[in-house]
Amino acid sequence: MENPKSLQFIDELTSYFHALPGVGKKTAQRYALQLLKHDDDFLKSFGKTLSELKSKIHECSICHHLSENPICGICAAPLRKDDLICVVEDVRDVIAIENTGQFQGKYHVLGGVISPMDGIGPSDLNIESLVSRIKKTPEIKEILLALRITMEGDTTNFFLYKKLKELNVQITTIARGVSFGEQIEYTDEITLAKSIINRVPYEL
Amino acid sequence: MENPKSLQFIDELTSYFHALPGVGKKTAQRYALQLLKHDDDFLKSFGKTLSELKSKIHECSICHHLSENPICGICAAPLRKDDLICVVEDVRDVIAIENTGQFQGKYHVLGGVISPMDGIGPSDLNIESLVSRIKKTPEIKEILLALRITMEGDTTNFFLYKKLKELNVQITTIARGVSFGEQIEYTDEITLAKSIINRVPYEL
Repeated sequence: MENPKSLQFIDELTSYFHALPGVGKKTAQRYALQLLKHDDDFLKSFGKTLSELKSKIHECSICHHLSENPICGICAAPLRKDDLICVVEDVRDVIAIENTGQFQGKYHVLGGVISPMDGIGPSDLNIESLVSRIKKTPEIKEILLALRITMEGDTTNFFLYKKLKELNVQITTIARGVSFGEQIEYTDEITLAKSIINRVPYEL
Repeated sequence: MENPKSLQFIDELTSYFHALPGVGKKTAQRYALQLLKHDDDFLKSFGKTLSELKSKIHECSICHHLSENPICGICAAPLRKDDLICVVEDVRDVIAIENTGQFQGKYHVLGGVISPMDGIGPSDLNIESLVSRIKKTPEIKEILLALRITMEGDTTNFFLYKKLKELNVQITTIARGVSFGEQIEYTDEITLAKSIINRVPYEL
């Protein structure tokens, strides 16, 4: 007979949701029980998508973005610029930048930033593949570093600069300054100072 | 060729997570991408559990709790008291009360509380099945109402009281008072007043 105190099947489903980032036990249980309100078709296709995830999604062999093909849609796009590579930490950053519609170059996904506290060193990141990509692609003229604005991001920027400066490419970073909608009085001092130093001509 | 701006397969998975309660688009995407870090076995069994959910889990035909069998483990347990039925809103409440280890009776899951604002009336809840259960089970002596302490919970308590008072059962509610660990000065006035009116003898 089933244990009256717990529902094994729901417990199992709860434990899968509990493995997601930031999902506690109570929330995981809520997700599991909530799913019972969906119809069987929804659950079957949700389940099928999960089961097939690993076989359907791969890392692009050029830029480490995710793709259903060996080379991702961005690397394979014939109209995108080959001379500009944007270096980002994560696949989510690629999606965020693509959503702006303002970037026409290609990407290189590092897979993280250097963080000794978390035990992440340069060899854990896709840095060697970036170096060899630049070496064998003479079209590349500029590397735009778009990492997080933290000590770890700055450390990684510095490491990449040292690695890449011999390779005859221009190295740039995204502009730092006051965010859209931000009030001057609440902007932190470092950001405000940077945005004054890097001021730009006012154009209409 | 795949759309460079979005990964259809990840978008699909994201939309399933987005259907969970309180999960926004960004969080859903984070869940979907995070799952790529798990191994294939994890994803396959997560997917299998989801696909089988509807065929494995049913409502108990007596108390509406969830079960892998037609009658749940609590209703089928031979040693539990038949004379006391605890009325709760939700399956999660059954789990919470079972976790206290202090309740030896049986349950009746209403499936919600009366809430005109949300369009939930008495006919949407498992009230008729409670009435007929009491009528055909003469062992039942007491109905313990354990609903949320809100206006909706109180409305439902009142409705149930009117429905059940002719049925020759005692109707009780869970005690209301100051919570464990709560400071008197921060306790709301209604709770504090109730806990003074319903004071109990001090026993060692």
